[in-house]
Amino acid sequence: MQATAALQQMQPSYIREILCAAQAEGVISLAGGLPAGDKFPLELMKASIIALPDRPELFQYGVTAGYEPLLNYFRQYYQLPSHHQPLVCTGSQQGLDLIARAFISPNDKIVMEAPSYLGALQVFGLAQAEIISVSQQADGPNLAELETCFAEQNISLFYAVPDFHNPTGVCWSLAVRKQVAALCVQYNVTLVEDVPYRELRFKGEALPLVSSFCPDNALVLRSFSKIATPGIRLGLVTGNSQWIAPLIKIKQCADLHSSIPMQAVLLDLLTHADFDQHLKQLREVYQQRYQCIAQQLQQKLPAGCHFNAVDGGMFIWLTLPPCDDFALAKAALDNNVAVVPSSVFYQKGMAVTPALRLNFTNADIDELTIAVDRLVEVIKRQLDKNLDLKAVAS
Amino acid sequence: MQATAALQQMQPSYIREILCAAQAEGVISLAGGLPAGDKFPLELMKASIIALPDRPELFQYGVTAGYEPLLNYFRQYYQLPSHHQPLVCTGSQQGLDLIARAFISPNDKIVMEAPSYLGALQVFGLAQAEIISVSQQADGPNLAELETCFAEQNISLFYAVPDFHNPTGVCWSLAVRKQVAALCVQYNVTLVEDVPYRELRFKGEALPLVSSFCPDNALVLRSFSKIATPGIRLGLVTGNSQWIAPLIKIKQCADLHSSIPMQAVLLDLLTHADFDQHLKQLREVYQQRYQCIAQQLQQKLPAGCHFNAVDGGMFIWLTLPPCDDFALAKAALDNNVAVVPSSVFYQKGMAVTPALRLNFTNADIDELTIAVDRLVEVIKRQLDKNLDLKAVAS
Repeated sequence: MQATAALQQMQPSYIREILCAAQAEGVISLAGGLPAGDKFPLELMKASIIALPDRPELFQYGVTAGYEPLLNYFRQYYQLPSHHQPLVCTGSQQGLDLIARAFISPNDKIVMEAPSYLGALQVFGLAQAEIISVSQQADGPNLAELETCFAEQNISLFYAVPDFHNPTGVCWSLAVRKQVAALCVQYNVTLVEDVPYRELRFKGEALPLVSSFCPDNALVLRSFSKIATPGIRLGLVTGNSQWIAPLIKIKQCADLHSSIPMQAVLLDLLTHADFDQHLKQLREVYQQRYQCIAQQLQQKLPAGCHFNAVDGGMFIWLTLPPCDDFALAKAALDNNVAVVPSSVFYQKGMAVTPALRLNFTNADIDELTIAVDRLVEVIKRQLDKNLDLKAVAS
Repeated sequence: MQATAALQQMQPSYIREILCAAQAEGVISLAGGLPAGDKFPLELMKASIIALPDRPELFQYGVTAGYEPLLNYFRQYYQLPSHHQPLVCTGSQQGLDLIARAFISPNDKIVMEAPSYLGALQVFGLAQAEIISVSQQADGPNLAELETCFAEQNISLFYAVPDFHNPTGVCWSLAVRKQVAALCVQYNVTLVEDVPYRELRFKGEALPLVSSFCPDNALVLRSFSKIATPGIRLGLVTGNSQWIAPLIKIKQCADLHSSIPMQAVLLDLLTHADFDQHLKQLREVYQQRYQCIAQQLQQKLPAGCHFNAVDGGMFIWLTLPPCDDFALAKAALDNNVAVVPSSVFYQKGMAVTPALRLNFTNADIDELTIAVDRLVEVIKRQLDKNLDLKAVAS
């Protein structure tokens, strides 16, 4: 029995592999997209969790779309129109996978910004889509490139992370949001709007969802890994029922339904009187951590390294002078700080901007300070080597 | 955006749809493969569940293969050789889906017994496999048919449920187990041995797994929905690491990993001092329920209806004189008893034995008695109609 061709060409996730290495004692990890483990709202979830053994109905098989009271909450909270539906997924990663399985046949064309979320590259790669990249600017995708793409090619869908993009942290401007939505309507392209970091804004005002300007041309993917906890594996897809129905058929095959006890606990958390306060505190903690790492980097980075300020999310995208980003990440790990090299966020064979993705939400302020010292040490060493090589070459 | 061709040809699960109808007030359901909701081991899970809020590490992202202490337990409990690995899945349904996605390309040939588990028909249908059916006898698959199949065609895998088959309840004999294993080795066919009902034997001695006779030609799928609870969505795949590694790659795309809090609770349950006692009691309850429904059916069924005794599992397979099994199931639902017609367990276009699958584990003894009365009433009415039609025809 042989693995399929689609699977054989797929690389295992470098990030999930580095997560193992990053757990070694003494390593400070800025690698994973991990929320702060010491800030999980377990106190707010406690009463609900403790009550589970008294609710046997939650432990029986359930319906595929999700736990009905939770679905009702989503319908109201997100003010879904009557022809839209919510579908609870085993993490938003599953939502993405279901979309690819339901709608993408081999060689279908999809569009993503480059760089892009590794999990999406993997999912669409496994579906054997032809992935077309558009470049990303400070306020979102390059609209001219996007329109050319939509106009000249038969595009199935556009996958985007408009709020605090993974890996770059970019947040699309209001103008770009409206224009992307208009292009999706004009060229009948489905927008898959992935918003796992949307609630993690710690500066400025929230912008409307891109899909709010093209609700019937979009599916929205939400994650509860960042605002609740990742371990419970719950996410959400919403959109037009004509698209949710095929997703439900695939989910029947994929896992029948997601954990019902966890869905009940999530509902109790989201409706807890103190949940907004939890989110507020979480944003404050992340802002402090961001400010710490940003300040440390600004003070200590050598010339030629750069990052744009972010207003939320979990990541800083640190661009570097020409160098081997993989070798640099490996050297950093040897120096007890884990980071992710930019190459993993691009399709194979694409021109890569040498950069590192730095997560600032999982380590605390003391650790972040040490991590920056360790990282800067390695970067300086690498750049000195580059200078030596240049000297030899000249 | 259009659903893929593979999805368009897939029917939604009749069983999952009937589960909704079966929830209507007054309906007694023998339709779903539901365990007894009033016998869940929640008392044994209670201490573990209540302790969850004090274990924040369980709520962070985890590794894809599963919660390490649970994996270690499985390695020991199932005495896995060092070149085999366990992989925790979001229900054994996910394990099956991962296997199809990892190893089945369109038009690959796989073998199943007919009738067969609907969820497997769906998964392999979605993977666009060519499904070849071999007939089932009282002691397992027809070996002559199976060998012809293996010898003459290029078969990727053989999917089987040797312990208390869904839907027929058949349990393979020891001789058949050994011969199937030998054929798998001889023709290098991978056996996918699905054993969700294995622990539900209430009569006779457990027989060795088929895969115990061909361990390196097999993947074993286990479910914790029947011995723990379905709502937690946990299953297990074990087998040669060369096959588990591709499954892990697909699972990264599918949902990153399964719920860690639920995995921790499952480990505590499986290692609880009273867990064996729980299983013993569960088997006794199921035996009582089986004996009740079997006795009722024997007393009340009209001539021409038949079922074989079972030694465990969850189902009775009630074969009927020639009739429209769908119409009969619909009439039964109108008479407030839900059952599953045999057609759904066969591939489209196959010759179908008119039959009904009756679940005896979810309803209690009083309900089972009433359900049989309602069902027999409908069957008699249908058979009378058949006689009328015959009279008209003759």
